Amino acid sequence: MKREIFVGEVGIGGNHPVSIQSMTSTSTSNVKSTLNQIGSLKNEGCDIVRVAIPDQSAVNAFQEIVEKSTLPVIADIHFDANLALKSIELGAHGIRINPGNIGSKDKLKTIINQANQKSIPIRIGVNAGSIEKKYRNTHSSRAEAMVSSALDFIKFFEDNDFLNLKISLKSSDVRETMQAYRLLDKKCDYPLHLGITEAGTFFRGTVKSAIGIGSLLADSIGNTIRVSLTDSPIQEVRVAKEILYALGLRGNHIELISCPTCSRTTVNLVSLVEEVEKKIKGIKPNKKIKVAIMGCEVNGPGEAVDADIGLAFSKKNGYIFKGGKMLEKIKPEQSVSRLMELIHEMLK
Amino acid sequence: MKREIFVGEVGIGGNHPVSIQSMTSTSTSNVKSTLNQIGSLKNEGCDIVRVAIPDQSAVNAFQEIVEKSTLPVIADIHFDANLALKSIELGAHGIRINPGNIGSKDKLKTIINQANQKSIPIRIGVNAGSIEKKYRNTHSSRAEAMVSSALDFIKFFEDNDFLNLKISLKSSDVRETMQAYRLLDKKCDYPLHLGITEAGTFFRGTVKSAIGIGSLLADSIGNTIRVSLTDSPIQEVRVAKEILYALGLRGNHIELISCPTCSRTTVNLVSLVEEVEKKIKGIKPNKKIKVAIMGCEVNGPGEAVDADIGLAFSKKNGYIFKGGKMLEKIKPEQSVSRLMELIHEMLK
Repeated sequence: MKREIFVGEVGIGGNHPVSIQSMTSTSTSNVKSTLNQIGSLKNEGCDIVRVAIPDQSAVNAFQEIVEKSTLPVIADIHFDANLALKSIELGAHGIRINPGNIGSKDKLKTIINQANQKSIPIRIGVNAGSIEKKYRNTHSSRAEAMVSSALDFIKFFEDNDFLNLKISLKSSDVRETMQAYRLLDKKCDYPLHLGITEAGTFFRGTVKSAIGIGSLLADSIGNTIRVSLTDSPIQEVRVAKEILYALGLRGNHIELISCPTCSRTTVNLVSLVEEVEKKIKGIKPNKKIKVAIMGCEVNGPGEAVDADIGLAFSKKNGYIFKGGKMLEKIKPEQSVSRLMELIHEMLK
Repeated sequence: MKREIFVGEVGIGGNHPVSIQSMTSTSTSNVKSTLNQIGSLKNEGCDIVRVAIPDQSAVNAFQEIVEKSTLPVIADIHFDANLALKSIELGAHGIRINPGNIGSKDKLKTIINQANQKSIPIRIGVNAGSIEKKYRNTHSSRAEAMVSSALDFIKFFEDNDFLNLKISLKSSDVRETMQAYRLLDKKCDYPLHLGITEAGTFFRGTVKSAIGIGSLLADSIGNTIRVSLTDSPIQEVRVAKEILYALGLRGNHIELISCPTCSRTTVNLVSLVEEVEKKIKGIKPNKKIKVAIMGCEVNGPGEAVDADIGLAFSKKNGYIFKGGKMLEKIKPEQSVSRLMELIHEMLK
């Protein structure tokens, strides 16, 4: 088990569930739009938000953002130690730095001391593209170089009595990322922040993140995740949530399974399923339920035997089933509303 | 290494690359629309196509489909052994059956013999929802029950001198699927056909398939894949391709990495990247190249250091870089066309 740290009130590591992070894409100096985006992120299911602090005008806005934010806020700082010090002073719930680009070791020490005083965690973020040369040239793989670099930074933090850490090792290469985290996971007990960096636009980025983050989580590696997309941060949270749902790592939700359709399917299953998908989107269920929608009797009740409730179709009729047994026959055009009725009944 | 089998001219197992399968969603009895869809699937990158043979009218159409198909064709048969026999006779390049629902052992034997005579492979497709009771009640997990059921079927085939097999163990649960394939992978040397069944609509199904199929492939498990979506089979192939690309398992392509944008980004990166994405879509490159598009100088050249060519932006300018070094400064509005020029040069 990993050490437990807290970003605001959100626990990471220990027995805490895997949390979702994202990063605002607004200009940090625009307080209003940044707070608006934080609100939307929270609404979508985000647990922790990160904001970039690239300059003094971002710092100037930061205090109000932290005070009014509905999510714990992590300040993301590169190059300038003073921006980090100032962000901590203004109430950041955590900071993210790449210790390799923040300046001298002395500057790093002042950041560590200030974070210690305020009892806030620091993420050490090592990225494949910015590993120092001394590591790049002495390891057989870049994944090992990243781990080695992270372990040296960790030692420096520990030598300065700072254990309130989480670590990330990001690369745009899925296999390299997986390899790096797997290595590091065995070598330290700090919580791990997972992500595939520069994963790309929505579709590509979703696939890469789902493989990389998902396979690590499936092996119980990773305590908090951030999906990086060249898209809105709201979409990042949607993908992150879906990864956690797929692995049963995010509490109650309505899981919708549906068959791929084939020449056996006679109803327009895609639009039927999309209709149900829309109708269940807003529901916050008090328990986990699995709903199956199947295009034919072959794969219907049998294949979806562990669904709590389901709908299957023959050439002419719809059938509601429960636990693999047929409950009632119904006209296809009434099937969705009947299914929704029964779902709502189950959630009462 | 797994045994080598052939579906038409497509090798599976051995040293063959992981192949992509999909399944037509047209009515099989409609020869024209089925052949059209097969053509589109091939165009998108599909290697092997499966068609459902649910009844006599599908069988009637099957001969012409097999003869004219531009991809090897697998016949998918449930319940009715005669449909399987007829499909083999008509030239199927492979068949998929669930030996648990095809009738008696004697009927199964006649199918095995006929497939042996024609030297075509059979996929044994065990699905979580249709495991026989005797397995369900005697194993601590459904994954183990699926494996046990598959191994018994394999033994029956072997006892009947049939080794031309591939195996699938599908479930709509990602973890269960992963567990089942991992167990089976250690216990047999038949090539494995991977998939998450009833994965759902495009977005959910993509996430579930990427995690399940992707994490197995990352561990070198799996020889051919089928992404199941409640959506067009063309989309299934798109997702399958993207999974293989993400893991470096599908030859030459142009990999596009791009940063997630943050308050440091001053250009409209999402639309820029989408523009490049569209422009490279049609290119069939003669080598692998990695293109990076980054919103700022922080994460620009450094983070994308292993990109073959890249584009990064400061507040006012675009920069073309190569191998992490700046090549030329360029106006943002000319950056995409210049990048494309250089990509085409590299591919000459």
